[in-house]
Amino acid sequence: MEVLEAIRGRRSIRKYKPQPIPDEVVEKILEAGRWAPSGGNIQPWIFIVVRDRATLEMIRKVSPGYLGTAPLAIVVCSDKQRAFQVGGRLGRDYMTIADCAMAVQNMLLAAYALGLGTCVVKSFSPIAVREILEIPDGIEPELIVVVGYPDERPVVPHRFSIEEITYLDKYGNKFVRKGP
Amino acid sequence: MEVLEAIRGRRSIRKYKPQPIPDEVVEKILEAGRWAPSGGNIQPWIFIVVRDRATLEMIRKVSPGYLGTAPLAIVVCSDKQRAFQVGGRLGRDYMTIADCAMAVQNMLLAAYALGLGTCVVKSFSPIAVREILEIPDGIEPELIVVVGYPDERPVVPHRFSIEEITYLDKYGNKFVRKGP
Repeated sequence: MEVLEAIRGRRSIRKYKPQPIPDEVVEKILEAGRWAPSGGNIQPWIFIVVRDRATLEMIRKVSPGYLGTAPLAIVVCSDKQRAFQVGGRLGRDYMTIADCAMAVQNMLLAAYALGLGTCVVKSFSPIAVREILEIPDGIEPELIVVVGYPDERPVVPHRFSIEEITYLDKYGNKFVRKGP
Repeated sequence: MEVLEAIRGRRSIRKYKPQPIPDEVVEKILEAGRWAPSGGNIQPWIFIVVRDRATLEMIRKVSPGYLGTAPLAIVVCSDKQRAFQVGGRLGRDYMTIADCAMAVQNMLLAAYALGLGTCVVKSFSPIAVREILEIPDGIEPELIVVVGYPDERPVVPHRFSIEEITYLDKYGNKFVRKGP
């Protein structure tokens, strides 16, 4: 699938088929994640692939925004301790979030290109997720990516136009589209 | 260009040709950015396209990590005030960073698919960038995306393998690849 087609076509999916995801497909999604850029190439991400049904259910119970019963979730964590050692406070407090989000976006696009649906969840209890997944101190669960075969075709949600969100050379100076 | 090919092939570029970027190409990159997902569909991003040579130079001078003389930079800002109104503290302090990073990743991939090179810069002085671009209070410059035609082919930097960064069902439980 073409890059721009994937970027425009991807939707957040909240209803999934129970159908399991083959291992080689899961690996392609992880592969996409690990090729994201990161500040100072620190690659702060750690992926916890959750396939165990009971574990998925426990996570879902502590994540209000986690809808549907997808067969897989990837809990994207960051190594805050290593990020601090390499990148100081900016590394630990900012770049871990941005880097993991970029890895997540790669995974969403790869999953979509492979026929899968995804949804990013942040509304989880970090304390509960740490306990369920036995995540040690220094490692932080950043975002959960729910993955499964979609059982809905959501309408395209509202998007601001380029003109509404873009300025030229300084804030407030309208960017006028010249393209077709 | 295929999604997975773009994800794996993209490199951070630090040496650019002076060649300007056609408007319709810039618009395709912005288009990719605006299709990123965002928490509660808030779309907190504001893009400031900087093409003015003097402005680019000023930004470069206050951004230690900003290398090369690319003809374009996109300063990705977030609307912290709106994010707080809609999403509270998590919306303002976390999701703005993650959402803007996802929009940035889309732009990096689109630019690469269009034959362009990019580099994400965070090592800038936010105070100086605010002043140069006349960014008002409540709006925060998050990341700068430098864009231009590449004048180098960087070697592929080290990447952790899937096995090194992935666990199954709980932290510490090795994920064993089964794929080819």
